[in-house]
Amino acid sequence: MVIMTTTSSLAFQPVLERIAEEMEHTPGRGRPADYIPALAARDPHSFGMAVAELDGTVYGVGDWREPFSTQSITKVFTLALDLAREGDALWEHVGREPSGNPFNSLVQLEYEHGIPRNPFINAGALVVTDRLQTRTGDASGELRAFLRAESGNPVLDFDAEVAASESAHGDRNAALAHFMASYGNIDNPVPALLDQYFRQCSLTASCADLALATTFLARHGIRADGTRLLTRSQAKQVNAVMLTCGTYDAAGEFAYRVGLPGKSGVGGGIIAVVPGRCTLCVWSPGLDERGNSVAGVAALDRFTTLTGLSVF
Amino acid sequence: MVIMTTTSSLAFQPVLERIAEEMEHTPGRGRPADYIPALAARDPHSFGMAVAELDGTVYGVGDWREPFSTQSITKVFTLALDLAREGDALWEHVGREPSGNPFNSLVQLEYEHGIPRNPFINAGALVVTDRLQTRTGDASGELRAFLRAESGNPVLDFDAEVAASESAHGDRNAALAHFMASYGNIDNPVPALLDQYFRQCSLTASCADLALATTFLARHGIRADGTRLLTRSQAKQVNAVMLTCGTYDAAGEFAYRVGLPGKSGVGGGIIAVVPGRCTLCVWSPGLDERGNSVAGVAALDRFTTLTGLSVF
Amino acid sequence: MVIMTTTSSLAFQPVLERIAEEMEHTPGRGRPADYIPALAARDPHSFGMAVAELDGTVYGVGDWREPFSTQSITKVFTLALDLAREGDALWEHVGREPSGNPFNSLVQLEYEHGIPRNPFINAGALVVTDRLQTRTGDASGELRAFLRAESGNPVLDFDAEVAASESAHGDRNAALAHFMASYGNIDNPVPALLDQYFRQCSLTASCADLALATTFLARHGIRADGTRLLTRSQAKQVNAVMLTCGTYDAAGEFAYRVGLPGKSGVGGGIIAVVPGRCTLCVWSPGLDERGNSVAGVAALDRFTTLTGLSVF
Amino acid sequence: MVIMTTTSSLAFQPVLERIAEEMEHTPGRGRPADYIPALAARDPHSFGMAVAELDGTVYGVGDWREPFSTQSITKVFTLALDLAREGDALWEHVGREPSGNPFNSLVQLEYEHGIPRNPFINAGALVVTDRLQTRTGDASGELRAFLRAESGNPVLDFDAEVAASESAHGDRNAALAHFMASYGNIDNPVPALLDQYFRQCSLTASCADLALATTFLARHGIRADGTRLLTRSQAKQVNAVMLTCGTYDAAGEFAYRVGLPGKSGVGGGIIAVVPGRCTLCVWSPGLDERGNSVAGVAALDRFTTLTGLSVF
Repeated sequence: MVIMTTTSSLAFQPVLERIAEEMEHTPGRGRPADYIPALAARDPHSFGMAVAELDGTVYGVGDWREPFSTQSITKVFTLALDLAREGDALWEHVGREPSGNPFNSLVQLEYEHGIPRNPFINAGALVVTDRLQTRTGDASGELRAFLRAESGNPVLDFDAEVAASESAHGDRNAALAHFMASYGNIDNPVPALLDQYFRQCSLTASCADLALATTFLARHGIRADGTRLLTRSQAKQVNAVMLTCGTYDAAGEFAYRVGLPGKSGVGGGIIAVVPGRCTLCVWSPGLDERGNSVAGVAALDRFTTLTGLSVF
Repeated sequence: MVIMTTTSSLAFQPVLERIAEEMEHTPGRGRPADYIPALAARDPHSFGMAVAELDGTVYGVGDWREPFSTQSITKVFTLALDLAREGDALWEHVGREPSGNPFNSLVQLEYEHGIPRNPFINAGALVVTDRLQTRTGDASGELRAFLRAESGNPVLDFDAEVAASESAHGDRNAALAHFMASYGNIDNPVPALLDQYFRQCSLTASCADLALATTFLARHGIRADGTRLLTRSQAKQVNAVMLTCGTYDAAGEFAYRVGLPGKSGVGGGIIAVVPGRCTLCVWSPGLDERGNSVAGVAALDRFTTLTGLSVF
Repeated sequence: MVIMTTTSSLAFQPVLERIAEEMEHTPGRGRPADYIPALAARDPHSFGMAVAELDGTVYGVGDWREPFSTQSITKVFTLALDLAREGDALWEHVGREPSGNPFNSLVQLEYEHGIPRNPFINAGALVVTDRLQTRTGDASGELRAFLRAESGNPVLDFDAEVAASESAHGDRNAALAHFMASYGNIDNPVPALLDQYFRQCSLTASCADLALATTFLARHGIRADGTRLLTRSQAKQVNAVMLTCGTYDAAGEFAYRVGLPGKSGVGGGIIAVVPGRCTLCVWSPGLDERGNSVAGVAALDRFTTLTGLSVF
Repeated sequence: MVIMTTTSSLAFQPVLERIAEEMEHTPGRGRPADYIPALAARDPHSFGMAVAELDGTVYGVGDWREPFSTQSITKVFTLALDLAREGDALWEHVGREPSGNPFNSLVQLEYEHGIPRNPFINAGALVVTDRLQTRTGDASGELRAFLRAESGNPVLDFDAEVAASESAHGDRNAALAHFMASYGNIDNPVPALLDQYFRQCSLTASCADLALATTFLARHGIRADGTRLLTRSQAKQVNAVMLTCGTYDAAGEFAYRVGLPGKSGVGGGIIAVVPGRCTLCVWSPGLDERGNSVAGVAALDRFTTLTGLSVF
């Protein structure tokens, strides 16, 4: 529920500091993802949080400038970049509905003839990457260029070691890609597609970088340089998909606790959007059993409680 | 995103009239549900819409005072009534996550040991009704009393003929109830539970009635008489479940087009909530292939576009 | 196994005695079904086995004259009785293919629009019972009359207490019946159908009774009194369905170990057919995790090994 | 069917000729598989049939010496070759139960943690090939050597063009292999495994070749040169799996109509075993909707009817 308690700029910095202090005294941080070494090595007590206002002012606390593995968070940007290029035609190849748990996703793919339910399950992100690859010849290069421009961080980059680790554990994604290819819903050769996909997952960025890179979604589609990436309607589409599908099998709970469009990654990061107002990025590597950062969700929960900046 | 274009009361009446006029010139109304005679008989060109403000002021247009079959819309009120009584314990018996398509709902029930994914799929509504029945001894009586009090309409009632028709086509719901009973997630005898459930579905009310009856969700849990039904947090829960699960297998699309917590019924009605601001109810019997009112979704889409009262 | 080691009558009695002795020294009998008291109370060390030749001569060992709860074994006779009446038309309402595990049976019912995969899963037996009920007005009465005639045991009967227990645990079967009814594949009211079904399951008979009652399948359709119940082709159908679907989710293993058409019940009984030669019935209440009698399968395995009377 | 109408050798040649003549006058041959050019090009009116006795005598009719694409028929030989090497340990990696339709096979793979239901669905054959590849370093080479030896045909070989076509349409098999690899049930790199698998599918042989190559299964495991490939028990295992799982989603119907262990391929061939007596191979490229040769099944049906050589 966006009743603004102040119509001018909020004092975000004290809010962030209060949250960081609370988090320090909160026991139970979950466990970092352990399927690849680079993620498993992160300290679960790390915690950073940043807020970016529409004009690019950034507030931060804790490890907010520390780079981390963004993982599935990049799915939001890849979606925006492809949607900007092909518009609604994209939605013939990937749906916009919540998908339920992973178990069902495979059944659904078969039941729905190779069309994934939404762009944030792995199957859907593979389709979006495939389409962006076809349109640009270098999907991950486009992604990096966009994120560098929006964040103002010229050295933001992929992590080749992480990408290689992902690839080494990539059988399930390979299965999904081949399965969709059997329905004609993948254009590129599967190995080339997987390379692009795993590179994107390996992107390393900080809370500050990601809060800034997300502001186009709070500005209804306008990039940092004032040009338009998405129409207002497309920006609304992306936000709606984030709210209903952005946190794996916990979208319902995230909607209730945080009440903002958000997207998490197994690296422990979460981005969130307060449309028309600001963006957030929080990072803490410890995950709950559904793959979302424990301290991240808790911190966003506190943020919307303290500021009233929730949509419900 | 609730950027209010006016901080004082909006002039809702002209907005409603503009929408009604647009709808008149919009071809394609879908087809009324035809599985029971009472629904099939409704004229697809009927159209009514009402807005209720927090103080109980109601605006309306078209057939906004015409009673119609509320069907699944009552699931919202049954949920609120049970949640008010048992609190978070309810969530051990029904989830809060989107469920994907009907096909999956049965698999999910088995996969998740008889716990339905959310209170708005039929399986979930059966569980909620079962629990309210156990707590009150007359779930549908409680529902009627609540709706009469909130709407101020003392003759609002069930339609015995509709309830009998539902019961005659009730094999799938009976299957769901028995299936959950086999997992121990149903307390009452299945035939008695189904009686309660089909009575609730048969409730007849107008747009005006339902807009008023929904205002407790815009008032963060406070009833028309100023007493509290739900805590602020519980009201937020119900709104979040409505946004992510309220329109069958089209929650993602509804979130994108309308951007409000909403709940539809196969009678052609839809209720929606602008938290902290107002509630809406629209009715037009023609449905799309997913069971949502064609003109109803279109009218809500126009409403949020014209007023900016969307959450994204 | 088509090469008979002896063309004249085998000496079955010594074979049975040798098997019974071996079973006495075999540890591990599994556990009786415990979902209803009457089954749970049986001693897992009980063991009986009977062989009936085509002319009605019966050999037996151990508890071969002790009545036990036949449970799913009656599905074979109900199938034969309905097939005799309606012929191939039955196969439009129930399939003849193996069904995989219970988990899939519900998905399959939905995927295949309410047509169960075969007559020996519960859904299929419900359909067959429903059809026999429609044709005779008293499916379980027909079943009892047939079994009394074939076994020559005029007091063979249902067990009302067992039927009541089954009914009290009958939610899953009720769910299946209502679910198929929603597809129009059930004619009778579900409660009446379930009554018939649970009565059939409660039939009590001994190894001797069942071996005799099964001989029509070894005689290619000819009953004990020389009249024909099934055509040769129909008898072949029933035997083939028994081999591929007769032992729940262990049909493959049963085919490999025993190599005969067979049908088990959770009461611990198993019937088997050596087409053109003889029938068998074995009983021991301890079950394996798939619901088949541990000593029963072992004894049949030994029988086919010792006599060469396997089909592979 | 265990009563032999003749204890000495049957006159198979006249039986085959009668069947061939009947087939000529039977309309409706189905349609050849059309997913690869080499299969689509075959004349649906081709028909050949061969019977091989235990001593290697072969009878034939029609196009019984014409080479055709064996496709899934080779799964039987790959299974036997691996089973001979690793014995029962194989059954920890692939089951022996019928799998139901293709739709369920993917669900089952997930539900059963990457263990396919049986060696004759594609997932299961991929596992068996993977294991044979690990044990021999050249699974398809082993297969060819075995088939050449058993058939006495030294030029029997793979078809590189067919293998390439299969590979070009191999996304679904690639998906299965990667999916099982994600559960740790595939040892070799997926691309190398698929090469082996598609080569095996491309094997070209005639009815005469295949009838002879199958005789070890009628001889309870003894090869043409008198050495033992499989134990008697293992040969029984393979026959049982053929009967319950050998004809895709039509195993139940095949069991009823033909009543013999059999394995079909989408090239239009079917092999069948009369344990202890003889083997058969029939070929006609037109398929029914389940992928089995229409004339092939009909011819085997006639054969067992005319000779009594069925197991039921």
